Amino acid sequence: MTDAVARAAELLAGHRDSIDRLDAVLVYTLAERFKQTQAVGKLKAEYDLPPSDPAREAKQIERLEWLSKEADLDPEFAKKLLAFIIQEVIQHHKQHQK
Amino acid sequence: MTDAVARAAELLAGHRDSIDRLDAVLVYTLAERFKQTQAVGKLKAEYDLPPSDPAREAKQIERLEWLSKEADLDPEFAKKLLAFIIQEVIQHHKQHQK
Repeated sequence: MTDAVARAAELLAGHRDSIDRLDAVLVYTLAERFKQTQAVGKLKAEYDLPPSDPAREAKQIERLEWLSKEADLDPEFAKKLLAFIIQEVIQHHKQHQK
Repeated sequence: MTDAVARAAELLAGHRDSIDRLDAVLVYTLAERFKQTQAVGKLKAEYDLPPSDPAREAKQIERLEWLSKEADLDPEFAKKLLAFIIQEVIQHHKQHQK
């Protein structure tokens, strides 16, 4: 292995360690987010509110757009990801109301 | 509005505030994760390494599984979400190597 390749391997390992730590943050944050949305789901089921709320979702998407710009994250990716998470949440809510 | 409905509205607002704060954590963490994977992509392009790395991805999925259990997050959802993020990362890497 040349020095340059060894250095590249070292840099790669460092980035991967960071990615692993960030993934732990993501998992715990998502877990907490689902606990919150589950509580919302229970409240909605108890008070017979509709599982989805388009006005709230529109506000979330707008906020996500400026947060993404502020964080230098592709807003299109952020929106696709939120849609993916919200779909999962709506599935949970529907299951609660059955 | 009855007292119970007012109380439900208050609880709902509190949960939504938590969700908004957690979404900010998610956006900034994802932004940092993409900065790390972009650095990995540059390194891979520079040293002509393949954009995807199945052995690394298998380890990530295994780790994600126990992290999810520890955090009480549905491991299937966590794996679908990581696959979604990794797909985006691979797209970025391919664009770098073009």
